[in-house]
Parts: sequence; C-alpha cells; structure tokens
Amino acid sequence: MSTDAVSEREPHRVVVVGGGFGGLYAAKTLARERGIDLTLVDRRNHHLFQPLLYQVATGALSPGEIAQPLRAILRKHENTTVLLGEAVGLDPDRREVVLSDGGPLPYDTLVVATGARFNYFGHDEWAPFAPGLKSIDDATDIRRRILIAFEAAEREHVPERRREWMTFVVVGGGPTGVELAGALGEIANDTLERDFRSIHPPDSRIILVEALDRILPPYPPDRSASATRQLERLGVDVRTGARVVGIDERSVRVDVGGHEETIPTRTVLWGAGILASTFARTVAAATGAETDRSGRVVVGPDLTVPGHPEIFVIGDAAVQPWKRDRPVPGVAQGAIQPGRYVAATIVRRMRGEPIRPFRYRDLGDVAVIGRLSGVTNIGWLGPFGRQGGFPAWFLWLGIHILYLIGFANRIVVVTRWLWSFLTRGRSTRLITGRPLLPPIEEPEPPA
Amino acid sequence: MSTDAVSEREPHRVVVVGGGFGGLYAAKTLARERGIDLTLVDRRNHHLFQPLLYQVATGALSPGEIAQPLRAILRKHENTTVLLGEAVGLDPDRREVVLSDGGPLPYDTLVVATGARFNYFGHDEWAPFAPGLKSIDDATDIRRRILIAFEAAEREHVPERRREWMTFVVVGGGPTGVELAGALGEIANDTLERDFRSIHPPDSRIILVEALDRILPPYPPDRSASATRQLERLGVDVRTGARVVGIDERSVRVDVGGHEETIPTRTVLWGAGILASTFARTVAAATGAETDRSGRVVVGPDLTVPGHPEIFVIGDAAVQPWKRDRPVPGVAQGAIQPGRYVAATIVRRMRGEPIRPFRYRDLGDVAVIGRLSGVTNIGWLGPFGRQGGFPAWFLWLGIHILYLIGFANRIVVVTRWLWSFLTRGRSTRLITGRPLLPPIEEPEPPA
Repeated sequence: MSTDAVSEREPHRVVVVGGGFGGLYAAKTLARERGIDLTLVDRRNHHLFQPLLYQVATGALSPGEIAQPLRAILRKHENTTVLLGEAVGLDPDRREVVLSDGGPLPYDTLVVATGARFNYFGHDEWAPFAPGLKSIDDATDIRRRILIAFEAAEREHVPERRREWMTFVVVGGGPTGVELAGALGEIANDTLERDFRSIHPPDSRIILVEALDRILPPYPPDRSASATRQLERLGVDVRTGARVVGIDERSVRVDVGGHEETIPTRTVLWGAGILASTFARTVAAATGAETDRSGRVVVGPDLTVPGHPEIFVIGDAAVQPWKRDRPVPGVAQGAIQPGRYVAATIVRRMRGEPIRPFRYRDLGDVAVIGRLSGVTNIGWLGPFGRQGGFPAWFLWLGIHILYLIGFANRIVVVTRWLWSFLTRGRSTRLITGRPLLPPIEEPEPPA
Repeated sequence: MSTDAVSEREPHRVVVVGGGFGGLYAAKTLARERGIDLTLVDRRNHHLFQPLLYQVATGALSPGEIAQPLRAILRKHENTTVLLGEAVGLDPDRREVVLSDGGPLPYDTLVVATGARFNYFGHDEWAPFAPGLKSIDDATDIRRRILIAFEAAEREHVPERRREWMTFVVVGGGPTGVELAGALGEIANDTLERDFRSIHPPDSRIILVEALDRILPPYPPDRSASATRQLERLGVDVRTGARVVGIDERSVRVDVGGHEETIPTRTVLWGAGILASTFARTVAAATGAETDRSGRVVVGPDLTVPGHPEIFVIGDAAVQPWKRDRPVPGVAQGAIQPGRYVAATIVRRMRGEPIRPFRYRDLGDVAVIGRLSGVTNIGWLGPFGRQGGFPAWFLWLGIHILYLIGFANRIVVVTRWLWSFLTRGRSTRLITGRPLLPPIEEPEPPA
C-alpha cells in the first residue's frame, strides 16, 4: 500500500479529474470528510446531466436546465477546490497531474473520471458531417442542424434536394441513437407538423442505422423488438445489420450484407462506438496500464490501476469488472456507483479499515422513445421490470427527475415536460450560432 | 393612396421584416385578419424578449426561457408564412424585398421592424473587446467572458493581473448598462461570494461609465440619483461625465473633463449609442427618406416613409414622432405600440376607413438594479409612479412576466426568480463555447 498514513496536520490530497457523474459523486462524498483536501478539475465549469442532453439537442429543454455549475454544487465545502483546467499529463512517480497551462497539481490519491467520446472507428473525417452528442455545445449545434434542415427544405423547390434536407440519419442503435431517433420522429410528426407552408414535416425520413442485428444490444431481444416497434410507429426506419462505410456532406453510404447503398441526406447524427478520453489514454501510457480496444483503462477489483493503488480510474474512462464476460455498462449508474465506492474506499484506507472490491448493482436500463413511450429492462423487478410504452416512460421520468441536480432545475424540467405533454410543443427550438441558411442552389442546367 | 383596393380573390400581401417586438406585434394582429397574406422574415428563427437578455448574460436565466420560435407563435394562422432569411435590398418601384439568397419577395405593404444595434461611434475596432448585448449569442458570449474572468483571477498569482481580471467596465448609463452593472454587482457580492478559494469576489471593481452628467437620462434627475445610490450600494463605481476614448484587450481609456485616465481591465461590456440596422439604412437609401445621426428612418405621423404610404418603418429602426423635442423612446413599448398601430392601419385602409396618426402612450419606465431593487418613472401614476428599491423591482417583475411570450416560459422564469430570490443563486452560469482559460502568463522578467 503506497498511500501514506494521515496525520492530523497533513490532509490527504485527493485530485479528481472530471466533473461528470463519476467525478462529481466521488467529490460530493469526499467533500464531507475531514482530513481530506479535495481538488476537482474539469475543462468545463459545469456538471452536465448527460441522459437529458438529447432533449436539448431536440429543443425540449434549455442548456441551463440540465447543467449546474460545479462551484455551486460544491461551494459549501471548505476543503474543496474547483479548478477550471485541462489535465494533459501525469507523472505517477512525483504524483503530479500536469495541467494544460503548465501548473503541476500534486496528489496523494488521484481519481480519473474523464469519460469517453464517440468513436468514428478511424474515420475522424466523418466528424464534421456527423456530430456526436457529448457537450452542451454539441447539443446546440445538433439542434441548429435539425432546425436548419427543415428551414432549408421549406425554401427548396427542387424535390430531390428537398428530400435530402428532410432525411435524417442517426448512426448507432444504443440508447443515445434510439432516444435521438425517437425525438426526431416526435419533432417531425407532432412538434413541427403545422409549422411550415411548403413542406409537410411528417413526410420526413428518419433512419436509424445499427451494425449489429438488433438495436439496444444490452437489453433482452424482446425489449429490442419492442423498441423497434415503437420507433416504427413514430415513422423511424430501423435498419439493423447496416454498417456505415462512408459519410460526406450530402450522403451516408451503408453496407448491408456486402451490398452497398447510398442514402442522400444533409443531417447525420453520430451515436456509435466509444473512445476513452485523451487523459485516460495518457494515464494508461504513464502507468503502463492495459487498455481495451476503445482505449479504456483496465482496472482491478478496487478500480485502481495495477501497481498504482493511489490511482483510480472510473466510469467510461475505465473497463470496470462486473460479470465474467461483460464489464460495467456505460450508463450513469456505471459511473455514480464507482464514484461513491472510490470515495468510501479512500476514507476506509485513511482509517486503516479493510477494502472490499467494487460490486456493481444493476439497477436496470430505461430508454425513452418519443413522447410517452419507452422500454425498460430492470432485472430486480422480475417480469414487472420489462415494460414498454407508457409505464416505461413514466419510470424513466421519475428516475431522471430524482437524479437531476439542482432543485430549481427539477421544477423547471417538470414544468417544461408537463407543458410539452399538454401541447406537444418544444419551445426551446432556437437556432443559435450561425443562424443563416446555406444559399439555395440553382437547379443544375440540363446536360 | 397607392395601396390597392382589395378584392375577395387577391389577398393583400403584407411583408414584415423583423420578428422583434414591433414586427411580432404587427404580425400577431395581422395574422387574425381575413384578406391578408402575411410573410414575416427574420434572420433568426425566434422572437427574443430583449428586456431580459441581460439576465441570460449574467447567468440568471437560460436562453430558451426568454425566446420563443416565431413559427410556434404564428403556427395557427394559415394566412401567415414565416421565412428564415435576411433582407438585403429593396426595390420600392417593383415593390419587392430582396433576400440574401436572391429570392425577391413581393409586397403590397411593407413593415420594416429591423431594430438597431449599439453604436461604437466610428470605433468598430473596439467591438471585439467590448461586446454589445443584442442576441442570444451575444448573451452567452458575455456570460462566458464574465465567468472566465473570475476563473482566470482565481488562477492568477500576480496581484496586478488578478486585479485586471476582477475589474469590469460597463459603457453606457442607459437601462442596459444600469441593469448589467447591477447584475454584476449582485454576482460579485452574493452569487459567487463563497465559490472561490484564492479570490474574494466582493473585492471586484465594477465601473459604470457614462458620458453625460447622469445615468438613465430619460428619467427625472431624482430617479437618476436614486439609481446611482442603489448601484453604489451594490459596490458599483458610477462615473458620469466620462467619455470612452480607447479600448483594447487590457484597458479602457476615459476622458473626464479633458483629463485622460486608463482603467486596466479584461472585461468591457458595451451598452451605449444606437445605430439603425443595415436594412433600415437600405430602405432609406432606396426611398430617399431622411435619416437621423444613428441612421434611423424619419417617418411621418402614420409611421410611413414620406412618399411611400405602403412602407412603414417602426421601432428602433425609425425616428417615430412623439413630443416636439423627443421621438418615441427605444423601449419595448416604443415598438409594441407602433406594431399594433401599423396592423390596425393596414386593416383600416383595406376597409376604406380613415387613418389616424400614431399616438404614443407613455406607460413609463422601469429598470431593475440587482436583486429586489430598481427605479421607476411612471407618469400616469402621479407621485406613486416614482418608485425606488423594492416596489420598483416588484412592478418590474409583474410587467415582465405579463409580456413574456409563452406560458411555459412564464412559469419557468417565475420559478427561477423565486428560487434565486431564496438562494441568491444563478444556476445557469455556464461557460459554453470556447471553454478554456487563456494561458496564465509568466511574470515579466525584471528589466
């Protein structure tokens, strides 16, 4: 054990990198402990409630309603410092994190909770055409793209071009892709139905592309089938066994069983694959830790890096042990529980108490599909845990309000949801950033 | 009269350019009229409740809470088309507006309500260092600058540099400047008071610079004095008779009675002067209309351009007649009332009814100063109309909720205000866009 015994006078310095679910729950628990000097580092000044980010991207909520300043959350704790900065290096021998502005940050215990981003599988050139959804800026960018597409379709007179603007492709049949596609279906069928004069938004094509043979692969097959049916009812074309092989400004190419097809579209949203954050890979390189194909750090039963009991890696940045053939899944609970565990473990060590290995409690999965429907897979509830339609949506609602940080945010979000439930509206569908349409092209002259 | 009599078959085509208060209130009234074919053109897809924009800039509200999509507001009216586009030209003889993508838009009656922006008095090179507050993007940019300044001060060890980051200069003692300065005072004294570890936010310097001899010049002198006292109580340094003569990345230079002074600062916010929108000047050039120094179009008693009874110019884009020595002021009512008048006038003409000149009803002015205080000047309430402190703030609250568009927004905004009233919090203080700090500079080597 290389962590030192703690005297009354020298507080134990804990540095937490990343203010997502893992880092924040670790910090919230540690902030209450005496004898600890805690520093939370994040590139952003806010904690983001990621599971609702697709609702910002689709105009149902405003950014401020699902985010909370880290300083505000942790302000009451005198032992806690919040630092806006980017961790770019690690010196495990000197026990220092290097920040992008050069400042070294010494630690006794380090908690790496820097998350992951989407993986373009070696095709980063697709990124400008197919943005992923990880930050508030991503969400407002995607919102802009979706709304601009309808505006451009309204102005476009050439039928094929109008069709390109009214075709939306979502890549990846995981929870993010399913929720985005469902929300797009709702936007086209309900929200915008009567907003335009030249186009009829319910004529939009929404295509969900998944390389595997079914969507929501962590769910049992009958739940995947239920989700597919619910999406189809919203007009979403669910294409499984379809691998994306090319994306440019005006099309997506997919390979379906060796046969290539081109889908003309102006709007592609990416929700596939996972790639550990750069800092997670920096930690692996500095400590010689093993990583998986996605660059996530393989950690031991106590979520520390082998040979470095003072370095924890948790959440999406790590491969956290669970079942023999399956690590902890990349959901909110897969970071919240490790965050709390790590905090408790650090305190136990300080007190000289024995350490137990991390045990993930599967609370189940809930995904929402459009308005008032969804799908759940909650093992510990038995058959009752496998819901579809409205009960699934209702469960989802309760859970998300419970975990949303900030009391005012909870009231505001419930108000918005109640209101959009009554009106089918999405009142925050604002185009910000570059507001203007691309110029309308003249029809090509006949050859 | 060059407007044509309207037959049952040929609807009267009205084009409204601009979806601010003037354009929106004109459009809302006209949208209910039969026999009118209405097109509303705006560069943005949303109506913005400008009087609360400073609350977004200072982290009290989220953008979606003070904006509403124009399509959503007008969707029920079959005779109304909303067009996302930029008006760049006018052909008054052919009666066509030219849009930036080339499309000509024919009209029988044109309503120009394109507003104004701030005026750097020939010093547009100051704009990058001293942003004005007109759009949601401006507001999130200003919010980022304010929050980054505190973050940078927290990281800065050289005292003079820390002081630069903790100095905020607001240029312009009109309502925008006063409300921004008051909100900054509240942020420094209350909201962020306990958020940092190296700095003490109440030590911030907030300087309000006004070239005239008192702030809020449209108010009576005793109200200006009351506003000054309330600002000073929030720690704002009110400098009247101070003319800005230079702004760069690290300082503002002011001229006070011939004596020049340099204020080292990293954050300057601009709220002075007024410059009519580009399209207003285009309209003046195309019709030969007179403009004032700010480029606003001088209109007749019926708010039309002399010689062009089919072209109305209203709101901040126009010099609208009121008192002999004073045109209609540039407040929300100065656009809402003309918007309604113009709509009624168009309908009267169609019916062949006589036209009355526009009469501005002064409903009075209310400005809020920080939390729970403000200043009012409401002539028709007699002495009761001259309030300061809490009664002024309460009046302001009621009026703003009344005029806020969208029922859900009203509930959400009231919730946020109640909550921040109880907690002194500003929960939407998110840094978006470029999230990172400027690099911390090394201290200069001794010469």
